Amino acid sequence: MMTKKIAVLPGDGIGPEIVAEAVKVLEKLGTEGLDISLEYGLIGGAAYDETGTPLPEATLTLSKQADAILLGAVGGYKWESLDISVRPEKGLLGIRSELNLFANLRPAILYPQLAGASTLKADVVAGLDLMIVRELTGGIYFGQPRGIRTLENGEKEGFNTLVYRESEINRIGKVAFDIAGKRQGRVCSVDKANVLESTELWRETMTELAKDYSDVELSHMYVDNAAMQLVRAPKQFDVMVTTNMFGDILSDCASMLTGSIGMLPSASLDENSKGMYEPIHGSAPDIAGQNIANPLATILSAAMMLRYTLDEAEMADRIENAVSKVLDDGLRTVDIYSDGTTKVSTSEMGDAVVAAL
Amino acid sequence: MMTKKIAVLPGDGIGPEIVAEAVKVLEKLGTEGLDISLEYGLIGGAAYDETGTPLPEATLTLSKQADAILLGAVGGYKWESLDISVRPEKGLLGIRSELNLFANLRPAILYPQLAGASTLKADVVAGLDLMIVRELTGGIYFGQPRGIRTLENGEKEGFNTLVYRESEINRIGKVAFDIAGKRQGRVCSVDKANVLESTELWRETMTELAKDYSDVELSHMYVDNAAMQLVRAPKQFDVMVTTNMFGDILSDCASMLTGSIGMLPSASLDENSKGMYEPIHGSAPDIAGQNIANPLATILSAAMMLRYTLDEAEMADRIENAVSKVLDDGLRTVDIYSDGTTKVSTSEMGDAVVAAL
Ligand SMILES: CC(C)[C@H](C(=O)O)[C@@H](O)C(=O)O
Ligand SMILES: CC(C)[C@H](C(=O)O)[C@@H](O)C(=O)O
Repeated sequence: MMTKKIAVLPGDGIGPEIVAEAVKVLEKLGTEGLDISLEYGLIGGAAYDETGTPLPEATLTLSKQADAILLGAVGGYKWESLDISVRPEKGLLGIRSELNLFANLRPAILYPQLAGASTLKADVVAGLDLMIVRELTGGIYFGQPRGIRTLENGEKEGFNTLVYRESEINRIGKVAFDIAGKRQGRVCSVDKANVLESTELWRETMTELAKDYSDVELSHMYVDNAAMQLVRAPKQFDVMVTTNMFGDILSDCASMLTGSIGMLPSASLDENSKGMYEPIHGSAPDIAGQNIANPLATILSAAMMLRYTLDEAEMADRIENAVSKVLDDGLRTVDIYSDGTTKVSTSEMGDAVVAAL
Repeated sequence: MMTKKIAVLPGDGIGPEIVAEAVKVLEKLGTEGLDISLEYGLIGGAAYDETGTPLPEATLTLSKQADAILLGAVGGYKWESLDISVRPEKGLLGIRSELNLFANLRPAILYPQLAGASTLKADVVAGLDLMIVRELTGGIYFGQPRGIRTLENGEKEGFNTLVYRESEINRIGKVAFDIAGKRQGRVCSVDKANVLESTELWRETMTELAKDYSDVELSHMYVDNAAMQLVRAPKQFDVMVTTNMFGDILSDCASMLTGSIGMLPSASLDENSKGMYEPIHGSAPDIAGQNIANPLATILSAAMMLRYTLDEAEMADRIENAVSKVLDDGLRTVDIYSDGTTKVSTSEMGDAVVAAL
């Protein structure tokens, strides 16, 4: 078997710290038969500071050549006044688009060990296990035309374009239906078809597609109602599929419902299951460099990478079980700490997972 | 003083039932010095069924001539397969746009009597009193070009345009700053300035505007983070101001946090405080015609109308106090019912408020 190449892109804020812990885990498995090589690349603000662009050619080439990508996070206050075209976020958006990573899988799972951490009442979220499938390379994130222009009367006008074609909707729909087929068999497609023509087409296309999946039940929901229902009764959902922008908003909302956002991994996949793996949470610049961030979402992202792209399901299981074990042992970074548990640092948490493998 | 003309637009689903109760309250005040006349108009699906359009000319004229509008709700399954251009929702969007009702005020308040109804833990939402100011006549709801076209390869593509100019951002910003000045003095402007140029302009314009308001503190938040923060710690917010689409999503999420969405009124105002008043909740077709819907949000919308447009603050107080009293008395429609309270119907609730005036 050939050595699998992993592009490691730590990025900004807490990115380097949390990625370092996931790397510890991967390297440990490397001593036990996992045949991977890691290559580092710059992305985001870190790349901008060093090279003047958030996505240097070298990083793009590295990512294209790699079998999978492990990403920390990008962005931070430091770069917020930059022009939008060179912001750290552009690095992330560039990789998603250039590598055609159109399917973003964002689980929202409540870890039983952390049941108390949710701001929602226990009975509303106990056992929550929802998968959000977000379209990631289209919609208003990438639509043209876009920009800021000056009108005849001298005032500025900003504009963006939300656009989806049938083939884009179909391919993300298929991902959602396939996943639902292996779960509870229910897909809820979220749109704003009562107002936006682009999502009217979304709804029609999903409805057509559903006819190919007799084992999956499709329902539709307007995005405003979906945001309400996530708060009211999140367990009604199995798989949600939605646009890039709505998925951004709803998946953050859903992950926060669990109280374990520091625990949630994500995958961004292309049509061949090549993927980029990253925690759902962001770069958290306010706590960067303090060795207090929770590395578990990144470690679990590495597990997802083993499962979905590297075909190493057993190793993935080992990581996930190790994470479960450290939680059972009461180890907690500060974001998930509660009375009666043991507060540990970022690196202590990583070490504990390695020890528990 | 001249008789004030109120356009009453019951609309669809539970709309007619809940509006009838608000009308009872207004008519009772009419016997005690409130000088108003009510005129009814068709809107939404009800209008479409009768006239073939969701916003008949007569309704538009009536609404333009009125001093204020009281609306129930529009929409329902029945009309979901109609072309988007004649859906019930178009009636509502048409009035907003034609009457220039650009400022949508959506309070999210937790009623102490209903503290237990929230799905969030008591300490997270106790005392919640947040005001969402949503831009209502611009953005992607109205941007051109829009539609569905067929591409050269035969597939369909749907597109919409998100567009904001400085003057639109300024005028909604001013509304938010003015309101914040009378509250805790904090405005959080919500955008996606790291991805969308239109909202980059939004952020810059808000930042400029804030310089005119030394008594108000402005912060910015990305919409995905805002959705998370609403779930994590909603009490951090005083006033939120945002775009039409983000406001649609976030205000529904925020109102559901309170557990009292059946209680929340809203106002949509033009530059002269002429306004349309309606409950935040929708037309709820599943429970229409059963006399079980909660009329309090509509009754409180009538109170908002008295306060903001008709300059009848004292009468508004009377309505709000009456609502408080029936809650204190333990009367509850089914949506807010809990053990130990008394279940009442829509019309019983309306009668109780009238009696408590
Ligand atoms: C950083 C930002 C561009 C990104 C997005 O909006 O997609 C992030 O919020 C995410 O959800 O991965
Ligand atoms: C009915 C619909 C067009 C409307 C909207 O999206 O604005 C509704 O959801 C609302 O929030 O008032």
